[in-house]
Amino acid sequence: MSLEKVLDADTVAVIGASKVETKRGFQAIRTLLDEKFEGTIYPVNPKEDSILGLKCYPSVSEIEAPVDMALITTPAKTIPGILKACGEKGVQGAVIIAGGFKEVGEEGKKLEDEIISVARKHNIRMIGPNTSGMMNLKKNMNLVGLHDVPRGDIALLSQSGNMALALMTEAKLRSLKGYSYYVGVGNEADIKFHEYLEFFRQDPDTKAILMYVEGMSMGREFLQYAYQTTREKPIILLKGGRSSIGQRSAGSHTGSLAGISEVARTAFKRAGVIVIENPDELFPAAETLSSLPHIKNNSIAILADGGGHATIAADLLTDLGVKMPELSEKSQEKLKAILPSAATVRNPVDVAGGTDSDPTLFADCADILLKDSNVGGLLIVGLFGGYGIRFAKSLALMEEDAAHRMGKMVRKRHKPIVLHSLYNSEKPHSLDLMRYYGIPVYGSLDVSCKCIGVLAEYGNFLRTYHPKAKFVFDWRAKAKPGGDEIIRKVREEGRTALLEYEAKELLSLHGLPVSKDRLAKTADEAVAFAKKIGKPVALKISSPDILHKSDAGGVRLNFSKEEDIRDAFDGIMKSAKAYAPDADIRGVIVSPMTRQGLEVIIGTKIDDQFGPVIMYGLGGIMVEILKDVAFRVLPVSQTYAKKMIEETKSFHILNGARGKTPYDKSALRKALLMCSEVIESYPDIQEMDMNPVIVHENGISIVDARIILKSEA
Amino acid sequence: MSLEKVLDADTVAVIGASKVETKRGFQAIRTLLDEKFEGTIYPVNPKEDSILGLKCYPSVSEIEAPVDMALITTPAKTIPGILKACGEKGVQGAVIIAGGFKEVGEEGKKLEDEIISVARKHNIRMIGPNTSGMMNLKKNMNLVGLHDVPRGDIALLSQSGNMALALMTEAKLRSLKGYSYYVGVGNEADIKFHEYLEFFRQDPDTKAILMYVEGMSMGREFLQYAYQTTREKPIILLKGGRSSIGQRSAGSHTGSLAGISEVARTAFKRAGVIVIENPDELFPAAETLSSLPHIKNNSIAILADGGGHATIAADLLTDLGVKMPELSEKSQEKLKAILPSAATVRNPVDVAGGTDSDPTLFADCADILLKDSNVGGLLIVGLFGGYGIRFAKSLALMEEDAAHRMGKMVRKRHKPIVLHSLYNSEKPHSLDLMRYYGIPVYGSLDVSCKCIGVLAEYGNFLRTYHPKAKFVFDWRAKAKPGGDEIIRKVREEGRTALLEYEAKELLSLHGLPVSKDRLAKTADEAVAFAKKIGKPVALKISSPDILHKSDAGGVRLNFSKEEDIRDAFDGIMKSAKAYAPDADIRGVIVSPMTRQGLEVIIGTKIDDQFGPVIMYGLGGIMVEILKDVAFRVLPVSQTYAKKMIEETKSFHILNGARGKTPYDKSALRKALLMCSEVIESYPDIQEMDMNPVIVHENGISIVDARIILKSEA
Repeated sequence: MSLEKVLDADTVAVIGASKVETKRGFQAIRTLLDEKFEGTIYPVNPKEDSILGLKCYPSVSEIEAPVDMALITTPAKTIPGILKACGEKGVQGAVIIAGGFKEVGEEGKKLEDEIISVARKHNIRMIGPNTSGMMNLKKNMNLVGLHDVPRGDIALLSQSGNMALALMTEAKLRSLKGYSYYVGVGNEADIKFHEYLEFFRQDPDTKAILMYVEGMSMGREFLQYAYQTTREKPIILLKGGRSSIGQRSAGSHTGSLAGISEVARTAFKRAGVIVIENPDELFPAAETLSSLPHIKNNSIAILADGGGHATIAADLLTDLGVKMPELSEKSQEKLKAILPSAATVRNPVDVAGGTDSDPTLFADCADILLKDSNVGGLLIVGLFGGYGIRFAKSLALMEEDAAHRMGKMVRKRHKPIVLHSLYNSEKPHSLDLMRYYGIPVYGSLDVSCKCIGVLAEYGNFLRTYHPKAKFVFDWRAKAKPGGDEIIRKVREEGRTALLEYEAKELLSLHGLPVSKDRLAKTADEAVAFAKKIGKPVALKISSPDILHKSDAGGVRLNFSKEEDIRDAFDGIMKSAKAYAPDADIRGVIVSPMTRQGLEVIIGTKIDDQFGPVIMYGLGGIMVEILKDVAFRVLPVSQTYAKKMIEETKSFHILNGARGKTPYDKSALRKALLMCSEVIESYPDIQEMDMNPVIVHENGISIVDARIILKSEA
Repeated sequence: MSLEKVLDADTVAVIGASKVETKRGFQAIRTLLDEKFEGTIYPVNPKEDSILGLKCYPSVSEIEAPVDMALITTPAKTIPGILKACGEKGVQGAVIIAGGFKEVGEEGKKLEDEIISVARKHNIRMIGPNTSGMMNLKKNMNLVGLHDVPRGDIALLSQSGNMALALMTEAKLRSLKGYSYYVGVGNEADIKFHEYLEFFRQDPDTKAILMYVEGMSMGREFLQYAYQTTREKPIILLKGGRSSIGQRSAGSHTGSLAGISEVARTAFKRAGVIVIENPDELFPAAETLSSLPHIKNNSIAILADGGGHATIAADLLTDLGVKMPELSEKSQEKLKAILPSAATVRNPVDVAGGTDSDPTLFADCADILLKDSNVGGLLIVGLFGGYGIRFAKSLALMEEDAAHRMGKMVRKRHKPIVLHSLYNSEKPHSLDLMRYYGIPVYGSLDVSCKCIGVLAEYGNFLRTYHPKAKFVFDWRAKAKPGGDEIIRKVREEGRTALLEYEAKELLSLHGLPVSKDRLAKTADEAVAFAKKIGKPVALKISSPDILHKSDAGGVRLNFSKEEDIRDAFDGIMKSAKAYAPDADIRGVIVSPMTRQGLEVIIGTKIDDQFGPVIMYGLGGIMVEILKDVAFRVLPVSQTYAKKMIEETKSFHILNGARGKTPYDKSALRKALLMCSEVIESYPDIQEMDMNPVIVHENGISIVDARIILKSEA
C-alpha cells in the first residue's frame, strides 16, 4: 500500500493535543499553524474544548470529516486503543512518537507487535514508534515542532532526532538548500526504510535522499530498492554504530541490532549508496549530489591561488581515490598565456598572484580547465570570495562577475565546480552567487574535497551500472532433490552440523569440485578406496561428535602403501576412541592428497540486517593474521565474484606474482557463484565454510567443507 | 646563535618601504603602526623622504641608531647587496620575503647559496627567503600585513601563507585563543625548523607549537629537538605533500623535497609530535592541547542528551583508538539517582531528557564521571548551550551555572572536558564561558572527537616517554677496522655494490648471524668447503657483474653428495659465462642450507629529510604483496626495535600463531639493533638489504645480504 496518506496527508488529527507549551501535542499544532500547513488540523483531547483557536475533539471518532492521518503523542500503553479508534474512523496513516517499545526489551517488543497487528487489521501505515516525527515541507506539514526548517529538494530519513536537527541547521547555515520531506524512522515497526526510498524515488521534487541509519530490519530489500533508486537519484548515508561501543549506544535507543560494519559498507556501496563516515561531510555530500552533474572520468583539476591548500587538497583527493591528470598541452599553453610567469600550469594549477588584481581570471582559468577533456570536474581552493575584502572593494564586483560565468559554465559543460574559500565565514555576495548555481562553497578543505570526491564516486558507480544486478533471492529455485534429502537426513538425526562427506556431497551436486572422498568402515575398505581414487591418500575420522578432527588425532596424511593405509586407519580409530569414548564414529574418510596450489577460503554466514553474506580470502595461517578478505551480500554475480577476488591483496599472488604461472581465477570465480546458488537453494543453511580451497594453475580443489543448518528449520 | 634579534627585535628597518598601498613595503609599515609595535621602525627607500609620517632613509647604513632586524621586501636579485649593507651596519636579523630562490631551480639555488654565505659572514640570522613574513604578537610586531590576528599562547610555523591565514582566521572565529609568534618558514635557507622549535620551547609565553610543513631540510635534528620539546609542550603538525600529486604541488612553491610519507609520520609520532591529516582538526588540536590537561589512561566517558551523536562519537573515538571503559558501579548508581529511569548510565551516558528542564544536571553528571577513576576525560555531545534557545530562556542561566562548575571541575581534577554543541553557531554565552575555562567547543562532532583524541594521544606519549631516546648518530663510533678495510677495497675497485660475501663479512664483524659462506674457485674447493661447513649446501655465483644471480642460472640448492656438488659448480660456472661472457667471475659461494623458519626482511635506506631509516617486515612473496612492513628512523633502541616487530601484522605469526612454538623474537630484535650499529659505523653506506632473514625458534640466519655505498664517498 502506498505511503501517500501518511506522507502527503491533507487532514491531520493531533491525538494528545495539549495547551501546555512544553508538550509535544501543543508544539505540533503551533508549528502547523505557524508554518501555514495547507491542510486541516483536528486537535483531539477529551479534556479541552479548543486549542490555539481550533476546535478540540474528545475522540477521533467524533471528527465530522474524513481524516487522512493521526499524529499520536500519547504514551506507549495508550497506543493500541487509539490506533483501533483511528482504524474504525478510517484513518490510514499514523505517526507514533512514544518510546517504550522494542527498544526497551521484551515487554516493549510485545506492545510493538500488538500495535503492528492493530495497524495491519485496519490498513493503517505507521511511522515509528520511537520517532521524532515527520515533515512534508512541500505542504508545510511539520509534525516535529521545529521552526524555520529550510525547504528544498533533499529527502531526509533519520533514526536520530539530534542528527536530523543538526542536518537541518547545517542546510540553513551553510547552503541555499533544504528538504522536501523529513521522516524520523524510529523502530520501523510498520513502514521500512525501503518503502520510504521507493516513495522518494518517485517524488519529482526530491533530487537526493539523505539518511542516518543505526540499523534496518529489512536490509536486503533496502539494497534492492536502493539499487533501483541510485541510478536515478543519489542516496547519501551515514551508518551509526560501526564500533562495538557505538552499537551499544545505538541499541540503547532505536532498538535495532547494528550490523557487521564491513558487510554493511560493502553492501551499501554495491547498491550505489554514497557511504559517509564523518558527519561533517554528510550534508555537504547531499547538497553537492543534489545540485551538480557527476564526474564522468574520476578525474579533476585543482585551481589554487596559493600553495598550501592545493598541496593538502591533492593529498586528500588522493586518499579519496580521485585522479588529478596532466592537462592537455593546449590547456597548458592557454593558461600560460593568461597567467604570470611564476604560475604553475600543471595540475594543480597555481595562479601565483595572477588573480590579485583581477579575480575574473578564475573564470578564464575554469573555462580552460573544464574544456580540457582530461578534466571531469574542478575544485577551486583559496581566497576566492575574499579579494574584495582583502585587496580592494572593487574586486568584489569582479568576483561576482566570475561567479556568474562559472555558474553558467557548469550548466553548459555538465561538469561540476566545487569551491573552497577562506573567506566563507565573512559571507561575501559572490559566494551566494556560486551557491545559486548549485556550486557548494565551504571554508573547510576536508569538506570541499569530499564534495568533489562524492561526485567522482557517484560517477564511477553510474559508469559501471548493471541493470540486472539483484539483491533478493529466488529461494529454492535451484534446489536439488539430493540436496534436500541430505538435509532431511541430518534433521532426522537431530543434528544441525553436516558431516564432512555430507557437506561435500551437497556441494558436488551443485558442481563444486570437492575432493572424491569415500567413507571407509574398515581398513580393507580404506585400501580398496585408495586404489580407486588414486594414491597418495589422506585419512580423516568421521563422527558427528568430533568437530575438531586434528585434536582427536583423527587426521593423517600422505599414504601410498597398503600397510601404511591400514596402520593409519587403525591408528585414527584408536586415537578417536581414546579422545571421545562415547562418540558415534561413522568410519574414516579416504581422500586423495591434493595437488599443490594457493590456499584460500570461502565462507558464508547470515548477517542480522542483510541475510546471507559470503566471504572470500587468503587461507591458511594468513586469514587469521592478515585478514585479507572480501565480503559481499549474496547473491553474487559473475562481475561481483570477479571484483571480490580482485579487491583482496592476495589477488596479485593469484595473478602470478614474480613471473609465476597464474592460478585459475575463473574456476575460483565459478566456485563463488556456485556457493551463491547453494545458499539460495537451501534456506535452511545457517553457515558454510570451505577451508581450505586449493587453487591450482588449472582448476580448484575443495579439501574440507563444513555446513551448519539453522537451529530451527 | 640565538634567534632573539630576529624574533624579538626592538628596532626594525623596512627595506623596500613604499607609499603604494598594494605594496608589501607599505602594508608592513601600516600594520606595525596600526597594531602599535612596541619598538622603532625605520623605513628605507632612496626615493622617499617619509612614509606614513616616519622618516625614510636612503639606505640602511644611514640610520643613526643601531638596528636589530631588517624586513626586506625587494626582489631576489637585490638581496645579496642589501644583506651585505645590513651586515656592515651590524644588523643581526633579516626577514626576506622575495621568492625566486631554491624553489625555481638551479639558478635560484645559486642565488640562495650566495645570500647564505653573505648572512654567515656577517652573523645575520635570516628567515626565508620565499616567506609570507613573521609576527611577534607579544611585542605587536606584525611583519605580515594582516590585521586583527588574535594574541595568545600558540606559536605558529608554516610553509604556506594561506594555511597561516586560515589558522589565524579560525582562532578568531572559533575560539578565545591566539598566537604568540608566527613564522613563515619559507625555504629554510638559514634558520631551520628545529631552531625555531628550541626558541619556542624556551619561551614561557608559548604553550603549544602549531606547524604546517611541506618539507624540512634537517629532519633528524628536528626530531631530536622535537623530542626534547614534546615532553614540555605539545607540537601539532600537518604535513602537506603526502601524495605524489601533493608533492608535486609542494615542490612548485617551497623548493624542498617532500619525504616518504610513512617514514615521516612514524618519525614525527616517535618524537611525540601530534600528526594531523585533516586541516579542519589542526587548529582545534592546538587549541585543546594548549589549554587542557592530557588524558592519563587513554579512556574517556561520553555524556549525551540524545542517541545519534553519542553513537557516532563512539564510532569515531574507536577509530582514534580511545577507550570508552565501563563506569564503576558507584558511578552508575550515582547517575541513576539523578537521571530519569529511561537514561543509560553505562558509557556512553544518555540523559534521556533528564536535562530538558534542568541543564545543571550536566555539571552533576560531569562531576560523577570525572571522579570515576576509570575515566580520564569527558566528551559532552548534543544540545548543551542550546537549552536556553530551544526550550526556555531561563535555562540559559542554568547552562551558564553548569559551565562555571564544569570549568572549575577541569582545574580541580586535572581531567579535560571537550564539548560538542549543536548550538555552537548561535553563540550562546554559556559556550564562551566553557572556552574561558579552556574547554574547546565545536559544532562538528568529527572535530570534537579529535580534540579528545589528541589529549589521549599526548597522554599516551608522555606515559611512555623515555628520556634517553636519541635521534642523532655517533657517526663511526663503533666502526671496525675490518669493516673500513672492506669498504676501502670496494672503493678501490671503483665499485659501489659490495659482493654478497663482502657484505656478509662486514655484517658478521658486528655480530650479525650471517651464514658461513666460503668462496670456492674450483669444484674441489667447493667440495672441501661443503665438508667443513656441513651439508647439505647451496651454491651461488659470485661476480660484481652479475646482480641477479638466479637469472644467470647462478643459484643451485640442496646438495650433499660430492659428485652433485661438482656438477652444480660446473653447471653454475657454465651458465654464468653463457649469460654474461665478459663478467668478472670470482667463483662460487658455498653456503649451508638454512634450517626452516619464518622468512623476514630487514633493509635500510636514506630518506631525503630524515637520513638513514630502517625497514622490517614479512619476507618472501608477501612483502611485495601485503606490504606488512614497519619503518623507523635510525638509530633504533631496544624498545623501538621491539615496537617495530610488534606493529607488523606478522607479529602474530612470530609469536607462535595456532599454538606453534614462537620464533626467536629476541634474536630478531638484536639484529635490528646491530643493523642500526652498522649504519651508524659506516656513513658511506647508502642502502643495505638482508633478504631473506630466516627466523628460527632459536636464533636467526641471514641468508642473503646486499650493501650499496653512496656514489660519492
